[in-house]
Amino acid sequence: MAYINVEEHLPGVTGLLEFRKDTAEPLRELTQILLRGPSTLTEAERELIATIVSHRNECRYCVTSHAAAADAYYGNSDTTDKIRADIESAPVSEKMKALLTIAAQVQQSGKNVSPEAIERAKNLGATDLELHDTVMIAALFCFYNRYVDGLGTFAPADSDYYSALGERLKNTGYHRPAQGYDFMKNQKLT
Amino acid sequence: MAYINVEEHLPGVTGLLEFRKDTAEPLRELTQILLRGPSTLTEAERELIATIVSHRNECRYCVTSHAAAADAYYGNSDTTDKIRADIESAPVSEKMKALLTIAAQVQQSGKNVSPEAIERAKNLGATDLELHDTVMIAALFCFYNRYVDGLGTFAPADSDYYSALGERLKNTGYHRPAQGYDFMKNQKLT
Repeated sequence: MAYINVEEHLPGVTGLLEFRKDTAEPLRELTQILLRGPSTLTEAERELIATIVSHRNECRYCVTSHAAAADAYYGNSDTTDKIRADIESAPVSEKMKALLTIAAQVQQSGKNVSPEAIERAKNLGATDLELHDTVMIAALFCFYNRYVDGLGTFAPADSDYYSALGERLKNTGYHRPAQGYDFMKNQKLT
Repeated sequence: MAYINVEEHLPGVTGLLEFRKDTAEPLRELTQILLRGPSTLTEAERELIATIVSHRNECRYCVTSHAAAADAYYGNSDTTDKIRADIESAPVSEKMKALLTIAAQVQQSGKNVSPEAIERAKNLGATDLELHDTVMIAALFCFYNRYVDGLGTFAPADSDYYSALGERLKNTGYHRPAQGYDFMKNQKLT
């Protein structure tokens, strides 16, 4: 049971977003722009940044959700499995390895981002906007992980919950589902 | 010099907010609602949460800015000086000590928020909304601190910069200043 009175059938962040809708609205908008807006990073790559940070923060709800979203884009869980185990040997581009390394530094502390890691990413073609977005997404998930775990929310054990959520995050993004949506079953109320 | 090409005269977060305005807009809105919107926590108390988190994340730009904002409300720096040194002996209410303790746990990790700390705050009268907002503000500053330091932004050494910024954050909040505002001098361009 969460530390505050959220609706019992709304796990993880979903209950918090309904608990205070006025703060949820700009937060959803920020997330949508950053993870789904136009970018030279693919949606899958941006979900990988969310995944590695949530993994290292050990936020079970977030890491399982965002790995599922990345998996929905990739069509399998190979990349997210390998990223969690070791960035350098994972099947992503050299530039993405450099950006994921920066994201992992952000997870520890903003002060841990090293000039060498930035230099490596720039040498591999990372633009200023890609560097900005990598740091911002990583920092945003340091926010989400703390919001979700700091309020003691519930994380479903059922893997079907997350695969359905991953599909929804791919297909409809971070906007608030329409009224009458069953968050727990990840489907419209029938 | 920051890791990305922000305007040289825009220190800390101000250069980042101008670098990518479409993400800055919902971020400013979230911050404004959470730190300046209607609440049973005073604006000064909410700035204390921002201060303790930024202090523990050692984000010099953020801690100096938000301590200055709190100081602008309190009229002196006694509370922010003492909060940084020791929460329990600082001149704030027992409920605020409990909430600041939770904020300090969030700074470490969402998973570090203890049922005992939540129970203590509830026993001292903290509402669910106050608990929610404390965790959300603390998490939000874990975001800001990483955004500001992760991109290697510049923090002015001049204390006048922060006292002027603190006054501005008190008087006009987190909205984007009007065109023609000199962020470095914290005043309208003349």
